[in-house]
Amino acid sequence: MALIVQKYGGTSVGSVERIQTVAKKIKAFKDSGNQLVVSVSAMSGETNRMAALARVIQDTPSLREMDVLLTTGEQVTISLLSMALQQLGCDAISYTGSQVRITTDSEHGKARIKSIDDHRIRDSLDEGKVVVVAGFQGTDEEGNITTLGRGGSDTTAVALAAALGADECQIYTDVEGVYTTDPRIEPNARKMNTVSYEEMLEMASLGSKVLQIRSVEFASKYKVPLRVLSSLVDNPVGTLITSEENIMEQALISGIAHNKDEAKLSLIGVPDEPGIAFKILKPISVANIEVDMIVQSVSAREGLTNFAFTVHRNDFVGASNILDHLRKELGAMAVQSDDKVVKVSLVGIGMRSHAGIAAKMFEVLHGENINIQMISTSEIKISVVIDEKYLELAVRSLHSAFELDKE
Amino acid sequence: MALIVQKYGGTSVGSVERIQTVAKKIKAFKDSGNQLVVSVSAMSGETNRMAALARVIQDTPSLREMDVLLTTGEQVTISLLSMALQQLGCDAISYTGSQVRITTDSEHGKARIKSIDDHRIRDSLDEGKVVVVAGFQGTDEEGNITTLGRGGSDTTAVALAAALGADECQIYTDVEGVYTTDPRIEPNARKMNTVSYEEMLEMASLGSKVLQIRSVEFASKYKVPLRVLSSLVDNPVGTLITSEENIMEQALISGIAHNKDEAKLSLIGVPDEPGIAFKILKPISVANIEVDMIVQSVSAREGLTNFAFTVHRNDFVGASNILDHLRKELGAMAVQSDDKVVKVSLVGIGMRSHAGIAAKMFEVLHGENINIQMISTSEIKISVVIDEKYLELAVRSLHSAFELDKE
Repeated sequence: MALIVQKYGGTSVGSVERIQTVAKKIKAFKDSGNQLVVSVSAMSGETNRMAALARVIQDTPSLREMDVLLTTGEQVTISLLSMALQQLGCDAISYTGSQVRITTDSEHGKARIKSIDDHRIRDSLDEGKVVVVAGFQGTDEEGNITTLGRGGSDTTAVALAAALGADECQIYTDVEGVYTTDPRIEPNARKMNTVSYEEMLEMASLGSKVLQIRSVEFASKYKVPLRVLSSLVDNPVGTLITSEENIMEQALISGIAHNKDEAKLSLIGVPDEPGIAFKILKPISVANIEVDMIVQSVSAREGLTNFAFTVHRNDFVGASNILDHLRKELGAMAVQSDDKVVKVSLVGIGMRSHAGIAAKMFEVLHGENINIQMISTSEIKISVVIDEKYLELAVRSLHSAFELDKE
Repeated sequence: MALIVQKYGGTSVGSVERIQTVAKKIKAFKDSGNQLVVSVSAMSGETNRMAALARVIQDTPSLREMDVLLTTGEQVTISLLSMALQQLGCDAISYTGSQVRITTDSEHGKARIKSIDDHRIRDSLDEGKVVVVAGFQGTDEEGNITTLGRGGSDTTAVALAAALGADECQIYTDVEGVYTTDPRIEPNARKMNTVSYEEMLEMASLGSKVLQIRSVEFASKYKVPLRVLSSLVDNPVGTLITSEENIMEQALISGIAHNKDEAKLSLIGVPDEPGIAFKILKPISVANIEVDMIVQSVSAREGLTNFAFTVHRNDFVGASNILDHLRKELGAMAVQSDDKVVKVSLVGIGMRSHAGIAAKMFEVLHGENINIQMISTSEIKISVVIDEKYLELAVRSLHSAFELDKE
């Protein structure tokens, strides 16, 4: 008898009919001899509807009260899903985050899970019940209601699986699994059967939208086998995200990620002296702007350097204004900024042991006449910033050159 | 500085605009130097909307899961009201029933409050905050979410006032207070300034819809001064429900209550032997039908008796079927049933010390040619069952005869 934690997102439970469909799937799993804990999101649209109400009432809604408001969404879903299961003759019980003591820190709106008390869940499982737990929510040490932020239901599911030592955590979504790249860009993209935590983490942070980074981090930390699969097809296989050592045959490159939300800013001709990076990035950080890639390069004129970095496009205007100030202050020559850039990344554990991946990547892009504006590498990924008009071309030519369409 | 507990019902918080209006009232109270704890219901319509969803999913919705579902209604209101108060610059904090440990028994859907932990509320009051508490809800000893049943938000408010030793508990509603009788029937009905707990209890149980019995019981038990007042007018006075000894001048009769939901059933000519009442009422009680008035009278034939009782009209058919069975089993002569009856009751503490009230009541009804079908009396009330067509006539003539329109 396996213990499985399943997570169904807002679209999967978006109506009474869909809740009934999910209940049938859960019952089938239960009937084939598994113990089941199910974590669910709010019905799709509910969270936005409530957030809109709040904004009518308060200019900047209180984060604490927003969490009190939003967590009602999952509470509605857990009760309705439990009823749907009972209607099918499948004994079920619902728990809010507070009831199973999903304890978090006090960062309303983006809290982090600190612990879960598993005894009520285990008792209910022992009684033969399907346990339905509200995702996305917890309470802090003082009992205040908190939410985990975007993708929080995935994190709840993984945390439950970790706390219970579940055999697998299954994240049901509207895609069939993790692909070698975005199938909307490259029709030959191939669904992977397995991928390592590390690769999945890189892909998530590089723009793959399948899973939120924090749920993958959690799974990796507690070695929870994590499966992404479709709630729209029967008997889905999905993609298993697991430890490197469990993956028999490791591909050189696992996938190609891309991120369209990039903007690039450069300060040209700043004095090349100690502390210059700090002087530039400090005011950016104070403005709460997150910096992604950073490149410092030699300027054409001696004693000067060029300093470039990327930010999210939403922060483009804010960062540009700061750089205009800094140009005068630091006596730099010019500010160059460009919000029409994208980031394309190769990810693969195989890179560790194989030299020449970067060279081959640059060669492929050069072959297509794509200019590389910035480069950043880590142990298992290479990212380049390029003009956004080359995005599709770059992804497709790399996908083909590294033979990702082949098993 | 007075500590006031206020309760606003579903209509008062039925929209964003109304929540904002309530927030303004609360702020004005706060600004005039009071400490405030506010208990609220779900926005009007929400509870019914959710209950309807549940019934689509489960033929007979699980009582436990129904409570999980319905309590989200008040949770939405407490967060929105707290935000509205904060928007007005009035510091406020929300608490669910679970967060202030409103502990109840485990009777889902009609739980009773056992205790309230007041320390979080006191701490927040000490910090100068308005405390907004979800009405209608609690958790049992095991942490399961419970609801208090109809009128539960009133009970929450009174229980909070009792736990905190509040100076007054104010129930805001859509009427201006407690009237000597239903103003829709008798335009001369007068709003009372004060009424005793005991009288209010009788009136509530006899059909007055202003307050639920349990909240009055609670107020009486813990001597909480309870005020019913309108949320629709400015500076309302309302009606104060308090201990008998606090009421300076006690009227002979306080009010006239009526109940239209009555039905009367009689078993004619049953053997007059010990245990006959038990034999008749046992199967009625097993069928979960509540019996109100009971009258056993002598039959025209020796050794026989007539047994009559009233039930809620919803139970009329069920009770009639049982009596048909009993007629054969007990060898009774006939079953008489009538669902076109009403109950009219005089209530007043003055009755205790004044004889002749009943006689005067019967005289008044006789003067109008109204036949009395059943009579039931207690220390402070007299109820009669009459044909429903005489309801208005009976109420008006009694109201006038006992001079209830005069201070």
